[in-house]
Amino acid sequence: MSFEKINRRGLLGIGGAALLCTIGDKQYRVNANTDIARLSSKLSLPPKVKAARDNSALTKADVSGNRNEYWITAEPMRWNIVPKKRDQMTWSSLKNRGRTTINAYGYRAWTPGFGKPLTRSPTVPGPLLEATVGDSLVVNFRNLTPGPVTMHPHGAFYANEMDGSYKGWWTDPGGFVQEGRTFTYLWECPEGTQGTWFYHDHGPLTPLPMYKGLFGPLVIRDPDETPPDREYFLAFHNFSPVVFPQLRQLLWAVNGRAFTGNTTNMRAKVGDDVAIHVYGADDDLHTFHLHGHRWEENGVIIDNKTFGPADAFRIRFIEDNPGRWLYHCHVLPHLHDGMIGWYLVD
Amino acid sequence: MSFEKINRRGLLGIGGAALLCTIGDKQYRVNANTDIARLSSKLSLPPKVKAARDNSALTKADVSGNRNEYWITAEPMRWNIVPKKRDQMTWSSLKNRGRTTINAYGYRAWTPGFGKPLTRSPTVPGPLLEATVGDSLVVNFRNLTPGPVTMHPHGAFYANEMDGSYKGWWTDPGGFVQEGRTFTYLWECPEGTQGTWFYHDHGPLTPLPMYKGLFGPLVIRDPDETPPDREYFLAFHNFSPVVFPQLRQLLWAVNGRAFTGNTTNMRAKVGDDVAIHVYGADDDLHTFHLHGHRWEENGVIIDNKTFGPADAFRIRFIEDNPGRWLYHCHVLPHLHDGMIGWYLVD
Amino acid sequence: MSFEKINRRGLLGIGGAALLCTIGDKQYRVNANTDIARLSSKLSLPPKVKAARDNSALTKADVSGNRNEYWITAEPMRWNIVPKKRDQMTWSSLKNRGRTTINAYGYRAWTPGFGKPLTRSPTVPGPLLEATVGDSLVVNFRNLTPGPVTMHPHGAFYANEMDGSYKGWWTDPGGFVQEGRTFTYLWECPEGTQGTWFYHDHGPLTPLPMYKGLFGPLVIRDPDETPPDREYFLAFHNFSPVVFPQLRQLLWAVNGRAFTGNTTNMRAKVGDDVAIHVYGADDDLHTFHLHGHRWEENGVIIDNKTFGPADAFRIRFIEDNPGRWLYHCHVLPHLHDGMIGWYLVD
Repeated sequence: MSFEKINRRGLLGIGGAALLCTIGDKQYRVNANTDIARLSSKLSLPPKVKAARDNSALTKADVSGNRNEYWITAEPMRWNIVPKKRDQMTWSSLKNRGRTTINAYGYRAWTPGFGKPLTRSPTVPGPLLEATVGDSLVVNFRNLTPGPVTMHPHGAFYANEMDGSYKGWWTDPGGFVQEGRTFTYLWECPEGTQGTWFYHDHGPLTPLPMYKGLFGPLVIRDPDETPPDREYFLAFHNFSPVVFPQLRQLLWAVNGRAFTGNTTNMRAKVGDDVAIHVYGADDDLHTFHLHGHRWEENGVIIDNKTFGPADAFRIRFIEDNPGRWLYHCHVLPHLHDGMIGWYLVD
Repeated sequence: MSFEKINRRGLLGIGGAALLCTIGDKQYRVNANTDIARLSSKLSLPPKVKAARDNSALTKADVSGNRNEYWITAEPMRWNIVPKKRDQMTWSSLKNRGRTTINAYGYRAWTPGFGKPLTRSPTVPGPLLEATVGDSLVVNFRNLTPGPVTMHPHGAFYANEMDGSYKGWWTDPGGFVQEGRTFTYLWECPEGTQGTWFYHDHGPLTPLPMYKGLFGPLVIRDPDETPPDREYFLAFHNFSPVVFPQLRQLLWAVNGRAFTGNTTNMRAKVGDDVAIHVYGADDDLHTFHLHGHRWEENGVIIDNKTFGPADAFRIRFIEDNPGRWLYHCHVLPHLHDGMIGWYLVD
Repeated sequence: MSFEKINRRGLLGIGGAALLCTIGDKQYRVNANTDIARLSSKLSLPPKVKAARDNSALTKADVSGNRNEYWITAEPMRWNIVPKKRDQMTWSSLKNRGRTTINAYGYRAWTPGFGKPLTRSPTVPGPLLEATVGDSLVVNFRNLTPGPVTMHPHGAFYANEMDGSYKGWWTDPGGFVQEGRTFTYLWECPEGTQGTWFYHDHGPLTPLPMYKGLFGPLVIRDPDETPPDREYFLAFHNFSPVVFPQLRQLLWAVNGRAFTGNTTNMRAKVGDDVAIHVYGADDDLHTFHLHGHRWEENGVIIDNKTFGPADAFRIRFIEDNPGRWLYHCHVLPHLHDGMIGWYLVD
């Protein structure tokens, strides 16, 4: 499959933006309502994927350090981007924004052996994966969506066959996990991998599954560092009408929700050591701006940080300023179309 | 009021991009010619704004450190983006760019007690606000525009009620300064706030007033630092036909003007210690590129710095290269539609 | 000439995006098929360009340090963006992407005195220009394209008349090199210029010649630094249908080619000290992401670096992870429309 996201209006007279994918020589228009099972049946199976009968049991025997093991599914679900139906910051109803419950995908964590789900439904973003330098992350991944999807980590160390990427003819089984199959990823966390990262689908249907919600935070902690008192992980991303035709407009989101009161309410009290991890999970430029606060980066004091797609960073400060504060992207149309939230300090 | 900036062409058949705002359940199309007074009359007054009879006299008794006091108005005005009607760099007339005098807003500084204005008209950007670490900025702000606007600072330390932001039900009087009212902001500058910053409107009509010109530079100086010989503050921003319907096209600007000879002519002589402060006052990615010069950032030598919305930074170097130099954004359509100027070194 | 790149559809009813240039008071629509010779004949010759009879022999007598001399032409050529006709990563034909051979421009290196060309044809990007701190770069530039073009360097030190920029009335001969003329640029490399840079056209037809391919890498090396075992230079840029009407869509490229198997295959073996130089040669935000690898920047470990137009940087690491890896821009439509390649580690 090859993929195009284009606006051909001016060029070919085809209206609007579209996600197009090519399988063989045929082009298909795709969005969140596409029959993914039918489309996926036309994909050629890469040789190494075909050879591995069930995609599973590929874990290396020698898992080094602590074994941080997760059981994660990818699942289709209904997802409400604006559950409160109101934007608290502008004190107004969002009825005019149209229908905001979509056919999304989400990752979900389970008890060992896929016993019981740990949350009532999958979420956007997916569960936090955590490790400390020296650990190994063993991620048992089961695909419950109708087309092949994967998990691709940033930051961790992993052998080539564990990178969860579609690579055409050379694709490893972890880069093409079919519906109902399980693949176990081994991602190592040696010295030099510490930091804020994220994971996301990188399979043959990319980028559709990531646009539908298949991404989540990953942190590899430095054991010598004092843990913060409060910690938040914030994904900045969007839900586009190109992918979700029921949306009347593009909505900008933090952690799968849009507008104050719907996005994550961060909380702290004066004196807390606060860590905020931010990552970009769409294709756009964003900034993280926090009212009433500043932090240092390379000896320069800032209160607004620009970041791009797949960038991930952490800011940290000692809380010294009580009140109801806004955090938001400083691209104003992003702010006003949902990329904003509250930070409440007692 | 909630706000949308969208291009619905492909989605709903409504032509072109538009600024839409919602008050109650009704949507209004807004631009620089909108009857702001009439629109504002439909806005609900937040309880704390209502309770403060005249929005004024809110200054804390205990102003710490030196009291740097300013008297600032926000005012409607006519503003000419291309007063010289020519682009010196391309040696050509700008007649084909259409009418470039717009209905803008600007901040303006006055003598104490709003005695006399310090400039003949308001300006885009507004006046430089200066402080040294340890000072307090006391900013008496009077709104002379027909709708509620505010001043929101970056970088400084301020109590929650001094952040000049609209927060719906929780809005403080400083976040909703009505026509004809005055509010006094107290912004403190303790150790840890030094740097290049800016201020801008963050009231209930956001982002329209900022797009119309309500922003300006703010600097908090380190007392241990030698002052530079030459210093410039440059806002990179745009004037959009979505906001100013009389414009034939989007114009990219530095300090409220577009094209060489219209934008700020920076000047220095060989041997000068030069400081250039740059900030992003629109929603786009820009770069600051200066011909014939380089500077260091975290041990790396650069001659082009990418920055995003609300980023602010300072570069500093000893002048060593005489001549007529260009500075510009390296996004080429921005450069060619006005985001460029001269730096003249004797 | 002045220049506009606009999409006027919503504003004036003129379809699609266009490159427009103004000469005198007349506007011309330009692209790679425009009769550049005819268009250029309408350009006024700046006084200093007129006064210098043949634009050449302007080299300062005193070239300091080692003289690194180059003979470079700018030439029209046919250029195939996708010579392999396939994308290896998606394992698919690119037939549906349309005709991908374009009327481009390229720089080309020659033996001393423009004796013989060093490559069979010009290339996108142009040849690597190299110097060590203390050297001078003497670049004899001959323009074989039908309109005036130049070479403008980033990072190096150069006198004002050597900056290769069009500056209207004040243009130096090196800023307006006419067809068939030669100009010798002297660019110095004193302490404080070391780093990764690039060069590009900055003449009166800007940005058209740069969009057509007139850019290339430039490196000024620190003599105290150990040379890497493997070194790659990667330009991230695009080919737009606005410039190349035969393209069915915008193609995102690395080093003049699009899609895996067409873009640069980087290679290394475990234990190699690898340096990758990346620069942005278009108008967009990109990121450099490399699977299975990380590097340090200011004490923070990253695997994805966002950069803007004209940014140039180098990453360096000791290779420790064998396999077939992808490198790509993490803006997903860029990745899927060509900005991706292989890094093969034995």
